[in-house]
Amino acid sequence: MAVTTVTLLGCGLLGGSIALAARDALPETTVRIWARREETLQYAREHGFSQHTYTDLQEAVRGAQLVILATPIAAFQELAERMLPALGSDTIVTDIGSVKAYVHRTTGAWLAERGHCFIGSHPMAGTEFTGIENAQEDLLLGATVAITNPHGASTEQVARLESFWQGIGCSTYRLEPVHHDQAVARISHVPHILAGLCARTAVAGEVPRANLQRLAASGFRDTTRVCSGPAAMWADILWENDSAIRATLQDCVADLHHLIYLLEIQDKAAVQKWLEDATGARRDIRKKRY
Amino acid sequence: MAVTTVTLLGCGLLGGSIALAARDALPETTVRIWARREETLQYAREHGFSQHTYTDLQEAVRGAQLVILATPIAAFQELAERMLPALGSDTIVTDIGSVKAYVHRTTGAWLAERGHCFIGSHPMAGTEFTGIENAQEDLLLGATVAITNPHGASTEQVARLESFWQGIGCSTYRLEPVHHDQAVARISHVPHILAGLCARTAVAGEVPRANLQRLAASGFRDTTRVCSGPAAMWADILWENDSAIRATLQDCVADLHHLIYLLEIQDKAAVQKWLEDATGARRDIRKKRY
Repeated sequence: MAVTTVTLLGCGLLGGSIALAARDALPETTVRIWARREETLQYAREHGFSQHTYTDLQEAVRGAQLVILATPIAAFQELAERMLPALGSDTIVTDIGSVKAYVHRTTGAWLAERGHCFIGSHPMAGTEFTGIENAQEDLLLGATVAITNPHGASTEQVARLESFWQGIGCSTYRLEPVHHDQAVARISHVPHILAGLCARTAVAGEVPRANLQRLAASGFRDTTRVCSGPAAMWADILWENDSAIRATLQDCVADLHHLIYLLEIQDKAAVQKWLEDATGARRDIRKKRY
Repeated sequence: MAVTTVTLLGCGLLGGSIALAARDALPETTVRIWARREETLQYAREHGFSQHTYTDLQEAVRGAQLVILATPIAAFQELAERMLPALGSDTIVTDIGSVKAYVHRTTGAWLAERGHCFIGSHPMAGTEFTGIENAQEDLLLGATVAITNPHGASTEQVARLESFWQGIGCSTYRLEPVHHDQAVARISHVPHILAGLCARTAVAGEVPRANLQRLAASGFRDTTRVCSGPAAMWADILWENDSAIRATLQDCVADLHHLIYLLEIQDKAAVQKWLEDATGARRDIRKKRY
């Protein structure tokens, strides 16, 4: 059974980009958009995201084969409870949250206990900007979508969800929620923190602001880019993936202490090795593209 | 007196980009290129960087109004000693090294003691790639060049050097060597280290490599980009700006400890503030473009 109607609950940067990609790549599929604010829906209609917009949550999900939770994670449970009466027994519910164990432990488990199908999704794409007005039809093109299925949805249901993501140009990758969270702590969440640390440290010393402003160039711009992302959303993410993030941050502190020590004992060969291993680690992680 | 002949000693990414920019923007100026390896000079001739290439150092500098040390800093002193007999009394010698106090303390002072004019330059531009084959004619366009003049070169000499940089599309910014080094520690050198830390930390845990490879996206790519730069050159830079870098790294460690503490005591508002301050610091540093 193909997905002919998909409902997006929330329509920000990522939800909007999903709507645009589905409009272009899946013309047989109707994309419904629910949002809390009428002005988001008006923007969606006027800019051709979809003409099927809803402010009534139950109306939005009734009859849909796929419902995508695309709001901040903190709103998932309220939405699940409110839409429950209208949710079809064979509807697949997924989300696009940046953490997975927390989502499955809360809303995912809650829906599964009530006989509904909940499978987690995490499209590995984004920018430092937010909101429907920054959505791009090609933002997800080529992106990996992590798929987590701890509640035991059937092979057919997982395949149906995956074929939606593949239909809009993503590849899918199944793994356990906790493994997902540990990986994204290291390739997304802590990189976000280190980008922030980089910006904070620049202004932490006694260096006159004008000197920083005049001398900062593309290296500073790129290393700090992601820290321009929305602080409230990122505070949620750090919260919901707390233990993996703290473990990773402890590794960072230990490795920084190690480098400071190497500089103190003037072991230049070891400092060079530290830098070479960084280059090698980056090359290795970015080597295998699917 | 305008600069009609400029000699580049070394022709890598930055030296090559200077040659291309001068070729395009300053057609009245002859750009001479000296390099240790004949194949670099052949590349320069064949790709139209300059037809004035030299393997004899003294021949390369004789009669030039401006000599630019564009090799790794470690080679400056040897080059200065070898070119000394051919160096004109009114020739301006500058460099494009990433640290300034060290350069002025060593080769700069050595030349100044012998009656020659040495002024430091640091063009704030680069990429993670190296070598003449990665040079770009617009790499320096709009870049700030830090100008350091602790040996007391005359106003006219400084103005002559600045007008060369401005002629190829840069803006110039005068400051003390130690202030330069403290600023670049925070907006260039430590960002490089944090990019490396980010890549190293990704592989430091028990996360299967395939998960990192499949889930890494643009955030990881950009946050770690600069750490692909040449490790040997960067080990030199960390060496030559050791004390400013260690002070900055200590600030990083303290700030990471602070964030870990906020996560441990579950002070979510303070975590959000930490992230907001990072965003604000980045915005502030990148606000003022000249």
